[in-house]
Amino acid sequence: MEHQNFAEQALNMHKEWNGKLSTTAKSKVSSRKDLAIAYTPGVAEPCKVIAKDKEAAYTYTIKANTIAVVSDGSAVLGLGNIGPYAAMPVMEGKCVLFKEFGDVNAVPICLDTQDTDEIIAAVKNIAPAFGGINLEDISAPRCFEIEERLKEMLDIPVFHDDQHGTAIVVLAGIINALRVTGKKKELCKVVVNGAGSAGIAIAKLLLTYGFTDITMCDKDGILTKDSQNLNWMQKKMTECTNLSGRHGTLADAFVGADIFVGVSAPNIVTPDMVSSMNQDSILFAMANPVPEIMPDLAKAAGARIVGTGRSDFPNQINNVIAFPGIFKGALEGRASQITEKMKLAAANALANLVTNEELSDDFIMPEAFDPRVASAVSEAVKSNI
Amino acid sequence: MEHQNFAEQALNMHKEWNGKLSTTAKSKVSSRKDLAIAYTPGVAEPCKVIAKDKEAAYTYTIKANTIAVVSDGSAVLGLGNIGPYAAMPVMEGKCVLFKEFGDVNAVPICLDTQDTDEIIAAVKNIAPAFGGINLEDISAPRCFEIEERLKEMLDIPVFHDDQHGTAIVVLAGIINALRVTGKKKELCKVVVNGAGSAGIAIAKLLLTYGFTDITMCDKDGILTKDSQNLNWMQKKMTECTNLSGRHGTLADAFVGADIFVGVSAPNIVTPDMVSSMNQDSILFAMANPVPEIMPDLAKAAGARIVGTGRSDFPNQINNVIAFPGIFKGALEGRASQITEKMKLAAANALANLVTNEELSDDFIMPEAFDPRVASAVSEAVKSNI
Repeated sequence: MEHQNFAEQALNMHKEWNGKLSTTAKSKVSSRKDLAIAYTPGVAEPCKVIAKDKEAAYTYTIKANTIAVVSDGSAVLGLGNIGPYAAMPVMEGKCVLFKEFGDVNAVPICLDTQDTDEIIAAVKNIAPAFGGINLEDISAPRCFEIEERLKEMLDIPVFHDDQHGTAIVVLAGIINALRVTGKKKELCKVVVNGAGSAGIAIAKLLLTYGFTDITMCDKDGILTKDSQNLNWMQKKMTECTNLSGRHGTLADAFVGADIFVGVSAPNIVTPDMVSSMNQDSILFAMANPVPEIMPDLAKAAGARIVGTGRSDFPNQINNVIAFPGIFKGALEGRASQITEKMKLAAANALANLVTNEELSDDFIMPEAFDPRVASAVSEAVKSNI
Repeated sequence: MEHQNFAEQALNMHKEWNGKLSTTAKSKVSSRKDLAIAYTPGVAEPCKVIAKDKEAAYTYTIKANTIAVVSDGSAVLGLGNIGPYAAMPVMEGKCVLFKEFGDVNAVPICLDTQDTDEIIAAVKNIAPAFGGINLEDISAPRCFEIEERLKEMLDIPVFHDDQHGTAIVVLAGIINALRVTGKKKELCKVVVNGAGSAGIAIAKLLLTYGFTDITMCDKDGILTKDSQNLNWMQKKMTECTNLSGRHGTLADAFVGADIFVGVSAPNIVTPDMVSSMNQDSILFAMANPVPEIMPDLAKAAGARIVGTGRSDFPNQINNVIAFPGIFKGALEGRASQITEKMKLAAANALANLVTNEELSDDFIMPEAFDPRVASAVSEAVKSNI
């Protein structure tokens, strides 16, 4: 697809759709009797049952299978802080993917505030109608506080996909990259570049999985306990990463590394950096749409396994294989939270979809359109509630 | 339908539906190209256009044809303050009716707060995704302040259906009752019983239409300037109703009245009261499910035209003939408010659907399932923007 035409086509299609979602009535109303059952006076019956027992909302209402996709438009794709109106096409798109891949009903909620307390209040107050909250494209470090406080307040799962969806899919890819290369997680040196929401969540989940040597970098180089200008969450990460206390640039971090995960910026990794890695190196260059280094350059410089966020190269690292199944499982199992255990189980389930026969340097991830994906993830989540 | 069985049937159907709404993707995603157009990278194009011009949200997103049905569960049907969870079946039902009758997408939002400021903040903050806000089942007098303040804040229509939908349908019925009886609005004495959200909105709209002699009653009798225990809105109504300063009971108000509108309580109107009305009296007994007086009793006592909220008697006064068309028209015409002019036009359009040939004591309202209803109302709204 030639870029100019593609952009025009995307715009035209969005105009034609005039909104990518619609609502559908499961209860058709074509007679007075239909009306009397779906609406008054019949509707009073489930109301009375729920008034006595809130849990019955899961039996009689859309809470059973509907989530809200919530954003304040502060960190949308690579577009930045474009606000709630301009964020809508992305949130609608996300809702479409929840439906198409996970059969989960999802409603886009774009908030006309970027104040942490106001966002929390709005989400808390709309929660009764929903079975889960997917936070999306909210800038760091506010996203951490918003998620944490909402998790404490609400009895439904709250999941910031930019953090945890990304982390689950990256872990799935790394699990399979270890299968291919025979590397052991306990012995791997890992570099995560980009200390925003995704990078921090990836580092945390890799630690939970059992990696021990993780170095985080940001635009000023390696994060250390004495780095300047870190936000509170980045500071917290300096307590569990870079335990040997290395200082230096991204290039310094690369030396001797086994695994590189980039959620940062285009073209900031050079072939020389890649060449300085350990043998059988694994490199996920996930900046979108232009990765940290192009796959052919990385391979030529010695990387064995290369993944990107793009569908036009092998090993696409794409959240769409995780989030629909995560919420499908959480809703079906009536989970009140998405726990670390569920995230690890989801990553393992994704990795296991690639058989030993299929597994290769260029095939470590299940395909987005593999029909087994959402149910494998949802079963993994459900069996770990 | 025997009541016990009917209640059981309504409950069973709600269980089977497990939520009366689902979301549907208009943009199907079955290939990588679909994904690239509906989601990244293609979705960035409409985002960029909207970031430059907020109005483009109506071209590229669901804002064009989607409203929120918002309640705090404080005054649900006849059930009272049952809270946001128990209110869900009603709000879902309302959303179903918006879709089925008006082809308007609607999302139920049940709020976990009954604080006026918090409700206003929540609705204001979720507004970017929606083209309109239908407030529902919020108790008086908070509903008046909530609606007024939201109307000032937002650039999309805010409409409290319990007030204005009811008022529009009552006015439509009264217009046709005047056609049948030949009474003149300027000469009619009107009694409105029930000084909650519906009663007050009915009185206001009848005044706007041109009635001049309206007496409001509540459980303590006629509302006067020196009545005790009135809320601020009821006090305000004593300035434009009961201009002759009558005091007394509901029975006193009935004497010599031409029109009675009840939005109050079951069985509180006696045959004697009806007999004390003027000739060719018009009586809308809309308490649900048991009216202020049963139609056969009212007729026997001399009422000429009797309407109720029920579908099993003639002249059903049912909001469902108004609200879907109101929002359909407002969205199609991109109205920023629902004005008094639109409400009057909607009532006239509804009344005009009943031809002179059809019009009779027992046929003053168009049928809920008349396929012309929603478009007649929406055209009336659109041509008065």
